Amino acid sequence: MIENAFYSPEFHGDYEMFDLGDFVLEEGVTLRGAQLAYKTFGTLDEAKSNAILVTTWYSGTHQIWDDIYIGPERALNPERYFIVVINQLGSGLSTSPHNYPGTFSMGNFPRVRISDDVRAQEQLLRERFGIEKLALVTGGSMGAQQTYEWAVRFPEKVRRAAAIAGTAKLTPHCAIWVKANVDTMTADPEFNDGFYTRQADLRKAFARKANLFALMGFSPEFWSTEKWATLGFSSVEDFRVGFLEAYFAPMDVNDLLCQAWKWGNGDVSRNTGGDLAAALGRITARTFVMPISTDWFFPPEDCAAEEALIPNSELRVIESNSGHLGLFNLEPEYIEQVDGYLNELLESGV
Amino acid sequence: MIENAFYSPEFHGDYEMFDLGDFVLEEGVTLRGAQLAYKTFGTLDEAKSNAILVTTWYSGTHQIWDDIYIGPERALNPERYFIVVINQLGSGLSTSPHNYPGTFSMGNFPRVRISDDVRAQEQLLRERFGIEKLALVTGGSMGAQQTYEWAVRFPEKVRRAAAIAGTAKLTPHCAIWVKANVDTMTADPEFNDGFYTRQADLRKAFARKANLFALMGFSPEFWSTEKWATLGFSSVEDFRVGFLEAYFAPMDVNDLLCQAWKWGNGDVSRNTGGDLAAALGRITARTFVMPISTDWFFPPEDCAAEEALIPNSELRVIESNSGHLGLFNLEPEYIEQVDGYLNELLESGV
Repeated sequence: MIENAFYSPEFHGDYEMFDLGDFVLEEGVTLRGAQLAYKTFGTLDEAKSNAILVTTWYSGTHQIWDDIYIGPERALNPERYFIVVINQLGSGLSTSPHNYPGTFSMGNFPRVRISDDVRAQEQLLRERFGIEKLALVTGGSMGAQQTYEWAVRFPEKVRRAAAIAGTAKLTPHCAIWVKANVDTMTADPEFNDGFYTRQADLRKAFARKANLFALMGFSPEFWSTEKWATLGFSSVEDFRVGFLEAYFAPMDVNDLLCQAWKWGNGDVSRNTGGDLAAALGRITARTFVMPISTDWFFPPEDCAAEEALIPNSELRVIESNSGHLGLFNLEPEYIEQVDGYLNELLESGV
Repeated sequence: MIENAFYSPEFHGDYEMFDLGDFVLEEGVTLRGAQLAYKTFGTLDEAKSNAILVTTWYSGTHQIWDDIYIGPERALNPERYFIVVINQLGSGLSTSPHNYPGTFSMGNFPRVRISDDVRAQEQLLRERFGIEKLALVTGGSMGAQQTYEWAVRFPEKVRRAAAIAGTAKLTPHCAIWVKANVDTMTADPEFNDGFYTRQADLRKAFARKANLFALMGFSPEFWSTEKWATLGFSSVEDFRVGFLEAYFAPMDVNDLLCQAWKWGNGDVSRNTGGDLAAALGRITARTFVMPISTDWFFPPEDCAAEEALIPNSELRVIESNSGHLGLFNLEPEYIEQVDGYLNELLESGV
């Protein structure tokens, strides 16, 4: 274990913990005394029919959903819905390499799969709230990977699904991206196979990582139009360090690597012996596939190809020149589109 | 200095050397006894009117032009033209960090600019061959940067220019790319600020570099269609290591860093106090701007924006799903298009 003050209510607001007990991971290791950190918004109705599950993305927690996506003026409206945002394993708030005691701590933390998260989330919703059916499952990026896994693995529990900026099966190119991201974090001798002793020793790793996200996370137009200026930054360097490096630098590298491995191995076709069409064909949820138009991690064409395999689905492209990190709502038109699509989906009878 | 057997005729075929003498770089340092490695094809006519200059790209030498672009069946036809391919400073064949003696060797090698190369090339062509006017200047990627610099700096010497997959002024996004590329090579303690002692110590650097070029150098479609299979490889890994890592691994890291700094600082508007329109407005050459349709380093939109500022120019987009590394002619349609455009340009009266 290693102390990290970032993963606390001080930085993430209040949240609750759920005990999973001894949770056997798909890759074989048991997480003993595993916990999920989650936050709820709104009230579960008596019929338990108004529950929405939100899953989290790489490096993100419930907090950004609270900040941007959830509110009485939003589609994810806590006055109508009971919204549960569950932080993924490895997120730093749930059981994660940095906070897990014993021999499996830090660089020895076992490999976790998207499907492990989905099983753990199902357990939480059932045991804590008695929720057997979700009005909606949604999430962005890795959250979309979890959304797809939910719809394939528990089709009877998912009435609607909205996969924002993510795919059901990782593409070869996105796997190369994940490897490049991992490479930025593991090159320093101080990384020491994950058994570093001080966060400050990994400063160069976060600088490389920030630049790589600058490279791939936005779009060329974002840079050529100096869109960072609209976000209160004065230069490329000011934005790269002041936004991206500042965002990642407090995080735990092993936690990020745990998430990255999950990301790089997300594939719903593991449920059907590698047959993606069969896996997506299982989905009964009314599904919206919502790529971001300039996303280089999960390009619209890749998302559209999957959408074509999902029975009751439609493609809704979010137009933005902010690339994948448009997820951070870098212009008001972004959240307006997301809200519009989610409202349309939530209002559709299923 | 450090021994590197790769930079020799054994691996690059025969070439000749030109003594620049003591060459004062724009950034202030003097390269003493500087040399350019070059190779010629064909015969200079009596009027010295059939000379074509080819400039080289990052990591490339005259060899790939010999292999792919030059031949009696090609636009760059040595039976009609006298073609001079000049290897850039830092290329490993010309004066470069790894082969430069003295205190400025290796990690101390001075910063070289695109404009230094162009001045050196002009000296070579004039002093060795008496060439005062070029029928064509062409090059790809960093070679396009040099082509633009030629056309802006020596407009009276350039009758035609063909800039393939490159820009006259680096974009902010491309600068981020160059930084990411540099980051892959400089992270290991064995790099030692450029004063490494063994090539083998930098193996991890080349593995990271290969993956980054896999990420950005092609297109998502290249990977989703498994285009590497058409090139004789059996998997992503087989291609990444067997093609990309094998390509870079024999090269000298300081040489690559010298080139990368040039790449990351290419900007013809340095000739006009930062006014790009004024710089490009100087060009009198008949100019073809030839981006590759899926290039992420030099996207067609960026190239088109510059083309609009060049008086006697036209845009000719090379359609390919191979991304920037389409430059390696990964499908026969590539070189056919390049030849078509170069023939059109060479046959146009100027």
